[in-house]
Amino acid sequence: MYHIIEVKSSKRTEMIEISDRLSELIKKDKIKSGLLALFCPHTTCAITVNENYDPTVKEDIMTMLAKYFPHSYHYAHTEGNADAHIKTSVIGSSQILFVENGALVLGTWQGVFLCEFDGPRTRKILVKIIPDKTDI
Amino acid sequence: MYHIIEVKSSKRTEMIEISDRLSELIKKDKIKSGLLALFCPHTTCAITVNENYDPTVKEDIMTMLAKYFPHSYHYAHTEGNADAHIKTSVIGSSQILFVENGALVLGTWQGVFLCEFDGPRTRKILVKIIPDKTDI
Amino acid sequence: MYHIIEVKSSKRTEMIEISDRLSELIKKDKIKSGLLALFCPHTTCAITVNENYDPTVKEDIMTMLAKYFPHSYHYAHTEGNADAHIKTSVIGSSQILFVENGALVLGTWQGVFLCEFDGPRTRKILVKIIPDKTDI
Repeated sequence: MYHIIEVKSSKRTEMIEISDRLSELIKKDKIKSGLLALFCPHTTCAITVNENYDPTVKEDIMTMLAKYFPHSYHYAHTEGNADAHIKTSVIGSSQILFVENGALVLGTWQGVFLCEFDGPRTRKILVKIIPDKTDI
Repeated sequence: MYHIIEVKSSKRTEMIEISDRLSELIKKDKIKSGLLALFCPHTTCAITVNENYDPTVKEDIMTMLAKYFPHSYHYAHTEGNADAHIKTSVIGSSQILFVENGALVLGTWQGVFLCEFDGPRTRKILVKIIPDKTDI
Repeated sequence: MYHIIEVKSSKRTEMIEISDRLSELIKKDKIKSGLLALFCPHTTCAITVNENYDPTVKEDIMTMLAKYFPHSYHYAHTEGNADAHIKTSVIGSSQILFVENGALVLGTWQGVFLCEFDGPRTRKILVKIIPDKTDI
């Protein structure tokens, strides 16, 4: 069994923080300690962990990815979103996080983000929380 | 304990879908729900999840990686495969997937791929399927 | 519960192998077979698996990342480490490894590395070892 969280993007490319949504699921599952696995079932958006404080960090990540994988380019894939597919493989579709003391373990400046590369759309992220054996 | 699947590449660089191989292992292990962890024990090939429908997506991913990390370049590593090592760290050596209802959970357009960056070779991918606690 | 390993970097950018540190923890936890999850709680360093034999591979990875994400550039983030944030999302903050026969499962040439992108600093890496169900 896993949870599904829905994330609505409002632009073609943007990073949307989902840390609080994950924290809610940890509380709902009443998991004190374990792992949290994320999987993104889309081929044009990805998951990353990075700074959630200064929004310019998100801007730079998206700007530099767009610099090297531009929206318009002589790609073989002609649906207009080849850049989004490439970025998805560069950033990655899954992520492993830690749970301790009933909360998500993140560094001071860290947040968990959906990276939308071909929005605006409603996206799903799959979340599975695996309790430590001592937590059962 | 883990499974080993062998994948033969026929070109220097190509993406080879392995989703069906993983589905077979889930059936073999009789796992209904859980996680599937993949690890690639090589330093010049990687694992990714992306579109398995239009083959031009694979082409664009490989073309753009080769554009920025060309085969021939004044690399410090002189074995002729420095590009393959760099691409491996950009794409990644491990992946987490979900298992539900006895099957791999993938989005409509998703496939799991070995990214060969220094073939042709016979490669191994390690696969471990971890059942949910309720599945034991 | 998880382990924390501390890693001291001595340059702004470098790759530091941590495979032996992980092996020690596997022995300490007396785990024979299972998964080892790594999470990096920082936003300017990452974790990767690549060649641990010829040091020029590490050099090429860092050189090519710096070529595309230079230290000095007209980034929106003005703290002087935007490059480090971008590289962190490209390489990734988590990693899944396999444990078998009481040891880390790595290919012949593989090592596990902290990628320091904004050092020198003392970094932490979180390590959780999950035994197989048959190992309890």
